[in-house]
Amino acid sequence: MREQRRLNLINSHLLSRFPALPFDDSLSKYRERTENINSDVLFHTYFINWSHSLLRIRSMMLQSPLFNKYNDIDLPLETRRLRCIEQIAALYFQYGINLQKDLEDPHRIAQLFHSVGEYDLAISTKLTVTLFLYADTIRSVGTAKHLPLVERVFDMKDVGSISMTEMGHGSNVPNVETTATYDHSTREFIINTPTATSAKWIIGGVGKTSNMTALFARLIVDSVDRGVHVFAIKIRDNDTHEPMPGVTIGDCGLKIALNGIDNGFLIFKNYRVPYDTLLDKLSSISPDGKFKSSIKSKEKRLGIIISGIIRGRISVIGGCEIHMRKALTIALRYGALRKQFGKKDSPETSLLDYQIHQSRLLPHLAKLFAIRTGMIYVMELYNPVKAKAEVDPECNELNEYHAILSCLKSLGSIYATSAVQDCRETCGGHGFLACSALGNIRNEQDCHPTWEGDNIILLQQCGKVILKQVQHTFKGEKIKNPNLLYLDVDFEHLKTYKAHFENRETLLNQRLLIELMEYKVNYVINQSLVALRDNAAVYSDVMDVWNNTQVHYIQEIGKAYGEYICTMQLWKFVQTLAEKCQKTANIVKNIFYLYVVERIEKQLGIYLEHAFNAAQAKIVRDTELFLCQELRDISIRIIDAITVPDQFLGSVIGEADGQAYAKIVRYVESDPTTYSKPEWLPILKKIKSTKA
Amino acid sequence: MREQRRLNLINSHLLSRFPALPFDDSLSKYRERTENINSDVLFHTYFINWSHSLLRIRSMMLQSPLFNKYNDIDLPLETRRLRCIEQIAALYFQYGINLQKDLEDPHRIAQLFHSVGEYDLAISTKLTVTLFLYADTIRSVGTAKHLPLVERVFDMKDVGSISMTEMGHGSNVPNVETTATYDHSTREFIINTPTATSAKWIIGGVGKTSNMTALFARLIVDSVDRGVHVFAIKIRDNDTHEPMPGVTIGDCGLKIALNGIDNGFLIFKNYRVPYDTLLDKLSSISPDGKFKSSIKSKEKRLGIIISGIIRGRISVIGGCEIHMRKALTIALRYGALRKQFGKKDSPETSLLDYQIHQSRLLPHLAKLFAIRTGMIYVMELYNPVKAKAEVDPECNELNEYHAILSCLKSLGSIYATSAVQDCRETCGGHGFLACSALGNIRNEQDCHPTWEGDNIILLQQCGKVILKQVQHTFKGEKIKNPNLLYLDVDFEHLKTYKAHFENRETLLNQRLLIELMEYKVNYVINQSLVALRDNAAVYSDVMDVWNNTQVHYIQEIGKAYGEYICTMQLWKFVQTLAEKCQKTANIVKNIFYLYVVERIEKQLGIYLEHAFNAAQAKIVRDTELFLCQELRDISIRIIDAITVPDQFLGSVIGEADGQAYAKIVRYVESDPTTYSKPEWLPILKKIKSTKA
Repeated sequence: MREQRRLNLINSHLLSRFPALPFDDSLSKYRERTENINSDVLFHTYFINWSHSLLRIRSMMLQSPLFNKYNDIDLPLETRRLRCIEQIAALYFQYGINLQKDLEDPHRIAQLFHSVGEYDLAISTKLTVTLFLYADTIRSVGTAKHLPLVERVFDMKDVGSISMTEMGHGSNVPNVETTATYDHSTREFIINTPTATSAKWIIGGVGKTSNMTALFARLIVDSVDRGVHVFAIKIRDNDTHEPMPGVTIGDCGLKIALNGIDNGFLIFKNYRVPYDTLLDKLSSISPDGKFKSSIKSKEKRLGIIISGIIRGRISVIGGCEIHMRKALTIALRYGALRKQFGKKDSPETSLLDYQIHQSRLLPHLAKLFAIRTGMIYVMELYNPVKAKAEVDPECNELNEYHAILSCLKSLGSIYATSAVQDCRETCGGHGFLACSALGNIRNEQDCHPTWEGDNIILLQQCGKVILKQVQHTFKGEKIKNPNLLYLDVDFEHLKTYKAHFENRETLLNQRLLIELMEYKVNYVINQSLVALRDNAAVYSDVMDVWNNTQVHYIQEIGKAYGEYICTMQLWKFVQTLAEKCQKTANIVKNIFYLYVVERIEKQLGIYLEHAFNAAQAKIVRDTELFLCQELRDISIRIIDAITVPDQFLGSVIGEADGQAYAKIVRYVESDPTTYSKPEWLPILKKIKSTKA
Repeated sequence: MREQRRLNLINSHLLSRFPALPFDDSLSKYRERTENINSDVLFHTYFINWSHSLLRIRSMMLQSPLFNKYNDIDLPLETRRLRCIEQIAALYFQYGINLQKDLEDPHRIAQLFHSVGEYDLAISTKLTVTLFLYADTIRSVGTAKHLPLVERVFDMKDVGSISMTEMGHGSNVPNVETTATYDHSTREFIINTPTATSAKWIIGGVGKTSNMTALFARLIVDSVDRGVHVFAIKIRDNDTHEPMPGVTIGDCGLKIALNGIDNGFLIFKNYRVPYDTLLDKLSSISPDGKFKSSIKSKEKRLGIIISGIIRGRISVIGGCEIHMRKALTIALRYGALRKQFGKKDSPETSLLDYQIHQSRLLPHLAKLFAIRTGMIYVMELYNPVKAKAEVDPECNELNEYHAILSCLKSLGSIYATSAVQDCRETCGGHGFLACSALGNIRNEQDCHPTWEGDNIILLQQCGKVILKQVQHTFKGEKIKNPNLLYLDVDFEHLKTYKAHFENRETLLNQRLLIELMEYKVNYVINQSLVALRDNAAVYSDVMDVWNNTQVHYIQEIGKAYGEYICTMQLWKFVQTLAEKCQKTANIVKNIFYLYVVERIEKQLGIYLEHAFNAAQAKIVRDTELFLCQELRDISIRIIDAITVPDQFLGSVIGEADGQAYAKIVRYVESDPTTYSKPEWLPILKKIKSTKA
């Protein structure tokens, strides 16, 4: 923020050229329509056992002048990057992070990242890259000798990065082209970028910051390609910050958003690195120059390597949750305070009182809780699964965990992208101003569907895991996956199943709703199996069969499975709340109902094929609208309880006090150029004096 | 673009630090999979009778150094506005615009705007505001004495604007608060902004440019509120460019996009303007101070006033079409040239060869043609409807035209927003770079759902027009609306209707597909009537009945009606093509099929209630995928034929020659800071040397 602007902000309410604005009580009146919920209980249950650290981190940020989102609205690229570094510096040491603490509690850093992400995803991403992606890779496939590297990044002596993606290969990691050729004479690797498209590309932190990277490259030993391995290598000199000889480092430039992160590229030319750069837990080269690996299959080995960085994928679910939460905060508060039209001779009506406005926003609120509770589940599973995977990197639990993470990451990003867009649109013209924050939230959210595993790829992988488990049952095995115990893909059962409800009351039954979500999983699995069988008769190549059974089929398995998990976790959340405050639990129960009913409504096509009749479809539609109306008044208090402080939102129309118009006035008047003539007036005059 | 960058761009291919990049023939090989279509015929049919002026305007822009989208990627606010003014200056007089020409051919300016919009919507919007919104308002509700004002804006002596929206009232124009109080003693109006929220707000061009505005204000005569009228008033002095005494003008600041336009605000304090500022075609004040109006109802009068600016709404449909076309150009070309994964021992596969990639992009291509042909229809109707409306401003034709414009504007913006998002996501990480252009296209597109009439409001209004016509048939009147001749809302007919198709071949029948679109219109009208009747029993107030019958009902009438119109117009387009080139027509026929089949697939819920069985739903799904595959190879040649020149795209990954990787390298290396150390290195070093 220009200094002048800051000064003006202080003075503007004294010098405003606008007519006086009375205090706007619209939002507070909206709140008062209902009794308060137990905000404390909701807050602490929503943020589980890290709610206290969240409050502490928020308070650290609020005490620093560096964390005021309004100041970040319009920064040039390098200023934004500088700000990001300053923000990291202001928090990192104060919070206190070191390897020992991470060993004791792996969620501790995640708490910092998630909390800082409430302010700006670029900050948490820069930290995620060095501490999760770089350090976790070393920890999962490195050996004891690599531990000092991990300590160095935890102490911020090094800034790490992860060089996986190349300009020509993103999702297809097994095909990266960078080579690391083993030279036995010196026991070194020679790193090369054989083609322009194999330059490491859009690597977070590499553009200007990082000095170390976990490099994914094909290991060549005795002219034999041993597949992709990882090397922890130095890319910049720690003193001079110059690229190492043989390394070219550049900056990828401006992105749609997240410009606090300096994404860069790397080109290697005969860059020699010592043997110990190889992270050699799975593969190594003996002193006599022979390659050996505990995992024979290249694909499996790479799968294990990548599974080491699952904390990064959890962060993505968290990022989606934050974007939804922030956008909904703005849109719900604005929807309550903004009035338009109304009955004759009556005061105007709040936007949120219109059916269509509710139906655009409240299902997103339900999805926010669904994704949040899904994320809690993923975090709870992390420690036990990690412990198992350390003993057996090919264990079933890791596979299942990967499937869950994959579908929840995809669902989270699908939900959040759609939610943020609706929030933007429901805020109309004010929502199009940069100071509403919605444009920036949308642009930040936009990275999620395609990074840390493209949704399309992840949904496929999830579908694959599920279908394999189903296949095992055909051989007589019992299903062990706790999220698939209801499995029954017998079409005779599916086509004769009739959902039992004849009105709203009988539909709103948690056992029935869960049954309907189970039905959908079973149905899409069945349909996928049929489609796979049909396509097997059409295509001779197994890849063709697989790839041509994605749309309407395997992609839908991943989504249905993820939505089943969210349903179960959201229900569990309601029960947890009920132990603390029945009243709050009852309200959140409506959120659970709305989540499931809206998901069914959006897929009525599936249910109408066999399970529903037309009258039941109407009941589902009507019930969805009923639930939106039920939640309408209380929705403000719900979002108040879980949202971020005003300074993290940076939205003139979304602050807690509901003084949107006063804040808009204050904001525009704080700009020193608001009332001035344009610098380009001479050009304008020239045009106006031109003879046609 | 910084000068240094321009210079580097010239030199970078000589000095590149990247390994050499061979010519990439992926895109051209993809093109060569099919014979060429008749691109000329497709181009001239797509752009109808203005194809030649489009080529001329494109060529004017291509000859000017001002029109290179790469130079506009990262401009500070005021530089961008300056650029926009310069761009207007470079085109306006060269194209030759004056009132006489507009009288002879009202589409002439529209052609300029649409053509310039291919480059940047901000330019065309700035022109739309002054020549369509401001001038058309004067021409439609002003009288002969106001004609000189129109001439002045056509000659660019004045820059006009339209001050309708206030900070507190957007959609609800009848409730704007600005007052124009008639003072009979001086025969003047005294303009006032009674409250802060009645400041005119986000008015295009007002921030820094406009000197005249069409002001929407409540006319007060003898203390009686006569409703909203329009006044053509001076807001800035033409010589000094200072706001007129009594007028405060400010700038609304940075927006999500379209920052070439300076949106501003206006505050009036006892600003006196002469009587002749009142646009007095419908209402006037006699020399003895008596108010009179040819239209008694305030609402009806305002409706007529607003209907004067329908050319603005047509521009919005055009803007959506352009955004879809540009985004699809980038995503389709990139989808063809980008390869990832593949069969064992085979070259990698183009993304567009994957079923899921096709199914994400090709339905948007079909929607692009649907919206384009809908827009052609709207333009063809413009002159005859305008002629009728000038004689009778309350004529039926204007009402029907308003309904068509409303649903097509809504559909266009819904289609385009979704298309651009999918295009962004299918371009993965490269699509997240600013130089892919997709972020900017998405941000520009984002204004469309909510400006020039919020979609929600417009769909309601369209539904209202249709329901009124249906009601008339209940009184025995015959339906005259040519887009509703098939009307039959008898539920006995609807619930017993069974669609006759048993395989893909019988589904792909244009008569059947049109019948299915008609069925949907009839079905949602019927369901809306039932819901209105049910709600009438629940709510006592008619507004409540109406507002609570929107979701699933009245909103869907507008969409179904719009999709029916697009279906008919797209079919007509196929027939027009067939007269010129049967081969090209056959290809576009598949686009027609895909449009309708995909629209049915997305609403299978409706069809499965009565019209389809489960087997037919599967046929619809399979047929959609079949059509995507059919169109896959030829889609590149189709988009090539209708898209904009590379310089207008400004997308390194979307240029016609398919050299995406080379262009990326060239672009990043042209930035003088790509290989330099950051200015903030000292801060980074300080952090790295901090003791934990």
